[in-house]
Amino acid sequence: MSAGFRHVAVIGLGLLGGSVARAVGQYLPDAVTTGYDASPEVRARARELGLADTIAETPGEAVAQADLVVLCVPVGAMGPAARALAADLPAGALVTDVGSSKASVMRALTEALPDHAVIPAHPVAGTEQSGPDAGFATLFRNRWCIVTPPADADPARVADLVAFWEALGARVETMDAEHHDLVLAVTSHLPHLIAYTIVGTASDLEEVTQSEVIKYSAGGFRDFTRIAASDPTMWRDVFLSNRDAVLEMLQRFTEDLTGLQKAIRKGDGDTLFEHFARTRAIRRGIIEMGQDDARPDFGRSDHNGAR
Amino acid sequence: MSAGFRHVAVIGLGLLGGSVARAVGQYLPDAVTTGYDASPEVRARARELGLADTIAETPGEAVAQADLVVLCVPVGAMGPAARALAADLPAGALVTDVGSSKASVMRALTEALPDHAVIPAHPVAGTEQSGPDAGFATLFRNRWCIVTPPADADPARVADLVAFWEALGARVETMDAEHHDLVLAVTSHLPHLIAYTIVGTASDLEEVTQSEVIKYSAGGFRDFTRIAASDPTMWRDVFLSNRDAVLEMLQRFTEDLTGLQKAIRKGDGDTLFEHFARTRAIRRGIIEMGQDDARPDFGRSDHNGAR
Repeated sequence: MSAGFRHVAVIGLGLLGGSVARAVGQYLPDAVTTGYDASPEVRARARELGLADTIAETPGEAVAQADLVVLCVPVGAMGPAARALAADLPAGALVTDVGSSKASVMRALTEALPDHAVIPAHPVAGTEQSGPDAGFATLFRNRWCIVTPPADADPARVADLVAFWEALGARVETMDAEHHDLVLAVTSHLPHLIAYTIVGTASDLEEVTQSEVIKYSAGGFRDFTRIAASDPTMWRDVFLSNRDAVLEMLQRFTEDLTGLQKAIRKGDGDTLFEHFARTRAIRRGIIEMGQDDARPDFGRSDHNGAR
Repeated sequence: MSAGFRHVAVIGLGLLGGSVARAVGQYLPDAVTTGYDASPEVRARARELGLADTIAETPGEAVAQADLVVLCVPVGAMGPAARALAADLPAGALVTDVGSSKASVMRALTEALPDHAVIPAHPVAGTEQSGPDAGFATLFRNRWCIVTPPADADPARVADLVAFWEALGARVETMDAEHHDLVLAVTSHLPHLIAYTIVGTASDLEEVTQSEVIKYSAGGFRDFTRIAASDPTMWRDVFLSNRDAVLEMLQRFTEDLTGLQKAIRKGDGDTLFEHFARTRAIRRGIIEMGQDDARPDFGRSDHNGAR
């Protein structure tokens, strides 16, 4: 299942990189792991945590013996990170990443590493936490990982990368980078943009205090705040790198919102009811696919009152 | 702590009504409970579940001996529900409700029951489930309940109602109905409207299949689907009854969204970063106030991999 990778280098040791390093340690115990992060503080903390067998002081040192390199930096930093390790990268090493947008990452990595095998990927998993302490080995279990091979990719190397992610517990799909970016624009990027917006709107109000917003957040708002607590650098880069797909989805969302706004203004209860009733089916699909917790409120509420 | 209520009648036996009935049974065991629901199926199920000491066949029968009546029907049904029990309501009974908008409920109840004490309230608690099976006794524990007394309310009766909710485990605040409606428009109504919108937008796409939306929902979208699975009748009524405040908040949200849209279009990373960084503080406040679960992903992810 390890697909023959004997030395995995992880570049960037935040939530995702820390989780990849931990997962390799747990599920591929025969593989050697090296790690690197541009921040000296993160490298020091990664050593304390034992995130990888070795935490290197330079990206070149981290990848010098690697047959798989996993770039776990914000998507805007992928090109510079790849250039920084290019000189030391073994000829046969496979380079992949975990970024949330794929067409721009594909371009950046193939430009930076024209002589190496590059197959981008995106594990659709995460939490609102960030930093080297936030990761955990089971982050990818039962989550989807989307592999986006270039048109000319070697099928054997694609199979190696698929096997790697399966070994870490993920279910894997392959698709082209452009379709990935459209799918994720609606399932992830637009939800984050909207959550960031409404949390900002709420914190700017004068008639309603911030303390009131916080107090009464259990009515729905708190779920948006979780999403809007995600890493700002990562998300800035996602919106800049997947601009066209995000703006397209945003346009459609705005049209639909205007329709419901009009229904509220006109007092058109039938339109509202019809819309609210049909969105339930999607929720059922998500529960059935095992992509969320069916317990009411995700089990936040303790039915036994022990909390 | 029971504030002297000896007989509590619950009208409407869905998630909220079922939870009120169960909570009275658990926390105020000396009080008699009666229940009524307009649906014969719900009444039958409520009897099977033992939701109240007696499930009555008419609203009049349910309230005939009550000293506290709690209306747990959609806000648009409050007026008709109150009129249906008016003739049988004891002169000294206090009437309250659990509706999510308060100014319109206040008008409907005081019009329907001009000779009775009416003090509306709103426990800010719930799940995405509905129906008589969905409730539980601890739903209100450590959640806020907002009591909105009319200007001429008897302070002793307000104190009685506050004590009732505190007995059920809630923390209680009082404010006027108009301010409540503004606060909840931002912390609850607008988030629901946006969640219903985006789930609808996603299900209408042609380039991205519904199966893809479901598969990759863990990237953020799934949290919106939970909110958008809430009861359609309840939410239709909320938007119609709190129209002005919802439209006002929606206007501000749209302005802010347009600002971020422009930043994405222009490639203005600094504006995006600055906005995304400041929304983290609100999340911290919510965790500190005990209004959400600090575990990453609400503890959905099992760090030990046992799930």
